[in-house]
Parts: sequence; C-alpha cells; structure tokens
Amino acid sequence: MFSSTKQCSCKLLFQFQHKLRQSSKNASRSCSLKVKQILSEPLEEKKYEPEQYDETDSEITFRFKDLTTKLCNPDQLRAKPDEADLKFGHIFTDHMLKVFYHRKLGGWQKPVIIPFENISLHPASKVLHYAIELFEGMKVYRGVDGKIRIFRPELNMARMNASAISSGLPSFYGDELIKCIKRLVEVDQEWVPHSPTSSLYMRPTLIGIDGTLGVQQSESALLFTIMCPVGSYFSGSDDSVSLLADPAYTRAWPGGCGDKKLGSNYGPTIRVQKRALEKGRQQVLWLYGPDHQITEVGTMNIFVFYEDEFGERVLATPPLNGLILPGVTRQSILQLCDQWKEFRIEQRAVTMSEIVQRSRSGKLLEMFGAGTACIISPIRSIEYQDELIEVPTMQQQNPVYHRARAELVAIQYGHIQHPWAQVIE
Amino acid sequence: MFSSTKQCSCKLLFQFQHKLRQSSKNASRSCSLKVKQILSEPLEEKKYEPEQYDETDSEITFRFKDLTTKLCNPDQLRAKPDEADLKFGHIFTDHMLKVFYHRKLGGWQKPVIIPFENISLHPASKVLHYAIELFEGMKVYRGVDGKIRIFRPELNMARMNASAISSGLPSFYGDELIKCIKRLVEVDQEWVPHSPTSSLYMRPTLIGIDGTLGVQQSESALLFTIMCPVGSYFSGSDDSVSLLADPAYTRAWPGGCGDKKLGSNYGPTIRVQKRALEKGRQQVLWLYGPDHQITEVGTMNIFVFYEDEFGERVLATPPLNGLILPGVTRQSILQLCDQWKEFRIEQRAVTMSEIVQRSRSGKLLEMFGAGTACIISPIRSIEYQDELIEVPTMQQQNPVYHRARAELVAIQYGHIQHPWAQVIE
Repeated sequence: MFSSTKQCSCKLLFQFQHKLRQSSKNASRSCSLKVKQILSEPLEEKKYEPEQYDETDSEITFRFKDLTTKLCNPDQLRAKPDEADLKFGHIFTDHMLKVFYHRKLGGWQKPVIIPFENISLHPASKVLHYAIELFEGMKVYRGVDGKIRIFRPELNMARMNASAISSGLPSFYGDELIKCIKRLVEVDQEWVPHSPTSSLYMRPTLIGIDGTLGVQQSESALLFTIMCPVGSYFSGSDDSVSLLADPAYTRAWPGGCGDKKLGSNYGPTIRVQKRALEKGRQQVLWLYGPDHQITEVGTMNIFVFYEDEFGERVLATPPLNGLILPGVTRQSILQLCDQWKEFRIEQRAVTMSEIVQRSRSGKLLEMFGAGTACIISPIRSIEYQDELIEVPTMQQQNPVYHRARAELVAIQYGHIQHPWAQVIE
Repeated sequence: MFSSTKQCSCKLLFQFQHKLRQSSKNASRSCSLKVKQILSEPLEEKKYEPEQYDETDSEITFRFKDLTTKLCNPDQLRAKPDEADLKFGHIFTDHMLKVFYHRKLGGWQKPVIIPFENISLHPASKVLHYAIELFEGMKVYRGVDGKIRIFRPELNMARMNASAISSGLPSFYGDELIKCIKRLVEVDQEWVPHSPTSSLYMRPTLIGIDGTLGVQQSESALLFTIMCPVGSYFSGSDDSVSLLADPAYTRAWPGGCGDKKLGSNYGPTIRVQKRALEKGRQQVLWLYGPDHQITEVGTMNIFVFYEDEFGERVLATPPLNGLILPGVTRQSILQLCDQWKEFRIEQRAVTMSEIVQRSRSGKLLEMFGAGTACIISPIRSIEYQDELIEVPTMQQQNPVYHRARAELVAIQYGHIQHPWAQVIE
C-alpha cells in the first residue's frame, strides 16, 4: 500500500507504532446494500471540479512532487486511544502537513510533513484579529477489505479554493493538496481506526499570517492539515436530536459569506448554541428572513421529507442561494436519492410555517441534518415560538435518512465499490 | 511620571533605549481651541461603564496586583522608526502583555509583561478554525506638556467584555486591564511618538486557544496586548476619501454580531474592500436592507451633516440597532456636538435615496467616518449604482468634521485638560 516517502525508513518506523485497538467483532461484517454506480452528476448543483491548470508557477500552486517528510522519532509516537475514547477532535495523529505562502518569496513554498507541533505566529497575525481563516472537513475510512478510502476530496478542494478566494487568501491546485494529504494519511495510516464505525477526520486549514495590523489582504499564509481519529456519532439506537429555532438569531445573510467555509461563520454561533443547550436542545435550527426560512442545522445542511397534498413524497432542502454551505454530504444525498427515483427532490426555500402546517396535518415524515462530521443526524423535535414540534423521523418504517446513511457508509467503508470513495494506494 | 515596576531596574533600562526622533518643530505649538468640560453624558446611548464587582475569584478576573514584568535585555531593544516611516500596524514596541485563562486551572492566570514574541498555538486552537477572537483599538498620545494620555479606555473595556460574552470567552474587570496596559505603556514609554500628530496604538486581543476541533465554547483563552507607534492619517491638505456603495454586499445583519468587535466581522470584508480599491475607491460604504441604509464606512462609523427642508442643520448617524459598532469616537463626537448646541443631532436610519436627494438639492453638506485609527475621515464622493455622488465636505467653511477632529485632538494631546484623556502617571 505504501509508496516509499522521500526520507524513507517508513517501514522501519511503523514497526514501532502502537497498534490501534481493532474492533474485530465487526471486521468481517457483510453488507447487503447495493448502490448503482453513479457515472454522472445529474443534479443542477454547482459542481466542484478542479479547474484545468497549465501553469507551474509557485504563485499558482504548491506541488506534491516537492513534498518532503520529516518523521517523528519512534519515542515521539503517541499511544492510540481506545475507540470508546474517541471524543471528536480531541486526539491528533503524530504528523501534520504544512505549506507556507509568502507573496514576497514568490508564493507557495514547498510542502512538508513534520511531527505534529504547535504553530508559532506573530501576535499581529491577521488570523488572530480579522478571522482571515478557512477550513475543510474530510474523512478517510478503513474499509471492510482493509483498504483506506477518502470520500470525494475534490469537492472539498474546490470549496476550499472558493473560500480562499473570498478571503483574499491564495488558491492552489486541489489535486496537489489531495496528493499531499494522501501521503500524510499513509504516514499516519495506523491512526485510521480499525473499525467499521470510526474514521480519521482531516482538517485542512488556511490562515492569513501577515504580522501587521490593518484590515487588508494577507500577503502570507499557512496551509496546514491535522488529523484526528473520530468515533461514531451514532452510539445509541436513537441518535436523534432536538433543535432550537429562534428567529432572533441569523447565521448567514445575502451579501455575506455563508456559503463559504470561513471561520467567521462559526465564532458568532457559539452564543446561540449555548442558548440551545441551556434550553435542553442539542442543536440550533438556523432561520432566515421574515418568513423564517430554515437554512441549516448546527453546522449541517438540513433536509425535510414529507408527503404533499397529492400524496406524493418529497425530499426538500434549501437551495444554494448564498446562505447555504454547499455540503459534500448534502450533494451526495441529493445524488443518491435522485438515483433511487422514488420521490420528488426539491431544492427550494422551506419556511417554519410550512413545517408547522405539515406537522399538524400529519404529513411531515422526516427531518435530518447532513455533514461530514456526523454524516446524517435525524431530528426528533423543534422548539419554535414556545411550541415543540414533534418530527416523527424515528417512527418511520425504513426511513430515508437511514437508507441514505447506510448507502453512504457502504460506499465509505468499501462494502460496495463506488467512484466517490477513492482507495489510497 | 513613572511608578517603579515590580521587577524594577526600569530606569537603568531606559538609558539604553534608542530615542524616538522628536518632531521638535511642532512640540511647542499652542492651541486656541476651548472645550467645555463635560460632566455628564447626556445622550441616551448605551453606556460603557465598568460594572461594580465585589468578588475576587480568578474565575471573574485577573488582577493588576499580580502583574509581573520581564524586561528585554538592552540588546533586544529595537530601534524606533522615523515618524515618516510609521505605516499603520507594521512596527511594534519591545514588550507585550499576556494573560492566560484556563477554566480547568481556576480561570484567569497572572498577567505578565514580557519581551515581544511570537505566540505558540496548538494547530487545533479554536481561534484558527472558528474565529473565536475579538479585539479593541485604543491610543495613547504624548501631549504638548510631555505627559502621556490614554483616551476613554473604560469604553473600550466595556465593549471588549461585551464582545467576550458574545463569543463565549471569559470577561474580566476592565479597570484591571487598563492598569496593566498603563504599565505596559510605561515600560515602552519611549515608543510613544514625540509628535503632535502621531500616537501609540494599542491592540488588546482575546482569542480562544482550546486545542480541540468542534464548534464549542473555548475553555482556554489568551488575552494579549501589543502596541505600535502610528503616524497621522492626515498627511496632505485634502485627506478625503471616495467610497464604493454596493448593495450586493452586507457587513452586518439583525440577529448577528455586527455591534461587537469580533474578528468575524472583518475577514469577510477583505474581498469587498479589494473590489472598492479596484474601482478606484478608498473605502466601502456598507449598506443594509432593501432601502439601502448606510451603516458604516470601511471600519468606521459614519456621519452625515445636512440642512433640512426648514433650513435647520442636522448631524445624523445610524442608531445602535445591532448593526452598528458602538464606536468610542462616534460617541465622543455625538457628545461634543451635543455640547455645542448649534444643530440638531439624530441617531436614525439614513438611506442612500435620502443621500441622493439631499445631494441633488444641494443641502448635503458633509459626510465623514469616525474611528480610533483615523479619528475622523472626511468623505468626498460615493459611487452608487453607476453614479458618483459628490459630497462637498471639503468645500465647507469651518466644517463640522474639522472642528470635531480639532477638539478631539486638543483633548488627546493635552492642549486642553479634559476628563476623557487620562494622564498615565
């Protein structure tokens, strides 16, 4: 599986690595799910395909071929946690990827994989004052065949470049970062959980590091990627969440950057999430406008499944109108369900009054959130204007959320071969 | 002027400090401005007065009495720049203030003044991913009497605490940080420009440093303050700016955090500021809503001065409705002008159509921005919907912007004694 790294000695090193506890009891499970191979992307969504580049200038991109790897000493390697202890985002792997950008030095510098370490920043760095920062969330999965797969990384790369451009930060060739990240996964491969429910979460991050005050474009930047093994979000049999929908708070707005994965979209949500928790709700249902359109849930996209007045079933999700993060899981769910051809799919504004009406008429069937971290998170209730709307997501027979999640999981863990899940050779 | 610092030897040290070039030609200038002492704040603005605290727990605040100072070695002290080279935010003083907060260690730790240095952050620090960060901008001035004055710092402290609460970051006693900052100014006192037009800009900053991924409240934080000598914004005789007002972009919105000084309010403005520069405009005039209300200009509050249909002169500025940063300079201008009792003052929504109409009728007299960095910045024109609206700010006799600026400068540089400018003893 491994190509030799430049600074080699990988094999020797890996002998010293602590073994991650393997959940062998599930290792040989089979999956009866069948997913048709999707050859085209029929939905008229904005596509994230890497652009074709001709140039080779360091102003345009860094290159995988320039990557050097400095491995930890064996005594620096950390013990891998038990799968039961995998709290999201708390434990990191042994190495990280770093690529600097300095306009004055010609642009992108050579990428390096180095032992995981703190980042040293000038205290005036623009990231610390003006939130010139963006990130992505991606996962790799250890499949039932032992192979490690990465899920649709080209979509993350295209979104990351869109975020960079909107932040005045340098863009790059997504393919080059994917190759560097794959190498990082190879180096820390034993950190990919040996489990059919856990995965390795990857966090590519791009920050503006100019050490000057003043709200201006950053002439220097640091792209880094860190990784952490994460457990399943679905611990119990009922993993549904209850939401707080309070029109007093707005996540994104026209003329803003709500459709980019910028740090600035997240900091202001902390106080609202705190309020939801205080009221006994797990997540915030973000509303927009005087008609209280639903936009996102927590840090996820949102889906509504219902039966319309003609008895036809419909899966609806807000459109990519600038307020909505173009989620990779969102797009994948839309594409899978489109293949099923079992119900109508609508990308349109959904208001709270519609939710209330459909709930009262008994025709609201399911609601769920979708994102890389949790894949799909079913919703059981919404607190809205002093009323608790019960959503019968968990009461459905063979619900859409569950079927879509099972198909995604089957693709991600290699139960079925699918072009969305690329094997890291 | 100096109280001895705990780790003393300040006097000895200062002998080694490089002298900042003094602009002696202006050092003895006199000022004919007279400003009445303002004993009350008559405007019904939100007040920023430090709360009365009784408790002494480190969960509540850090304390100036715990401050320790580690001075640079004399050979670490950097040369001070010529006043002409003072580009905003590019050169920093020799020392900085740091205070850590760790909930698990009981809260606020002891404040320290140390040599200026990089900050070492865990790569998962919440500030780098979710923009959990906020800052303040304040200045100290070396007065015509040689004394160093700080301008209304209690307003910045109250706003900083409001920003902290909205970010899930710990608050503190503003008075304690003011005392620590005053000590920092004492230590780096020779960095306060010997000039009647320059000043020392201070940047208190608070960032969330938990090294964990996941959009949650940060359990650890770092409050730091760095300082840089800054020149005058008013180099030439005509320092007016031209604005781009494009309703396609929105800075802040109801249910957001536009009235707090969070990093997340600034990152998304970079792309718009870039667009303004490309169109030959210096700043962005931020609009809001279908009626294109003016809200802020660049990173400043905005004022409009005009003659109404009855021939009465009016100074108008958008109200503190949640979209507007409650600026210290904004509040000071409102208070000064209220004292003058020469024209009506209105805090209300002002739309672009009103600006266009008043301009066409020849009754638009002045527009200007106000903020700590530039104090007051006159506006000469606005590009709006393919039209260039000329604003005759620079054609007025004894304009309001100029009189207000002169009064503020007179207070700040000690031409007149005023309670807003506190001498650092």
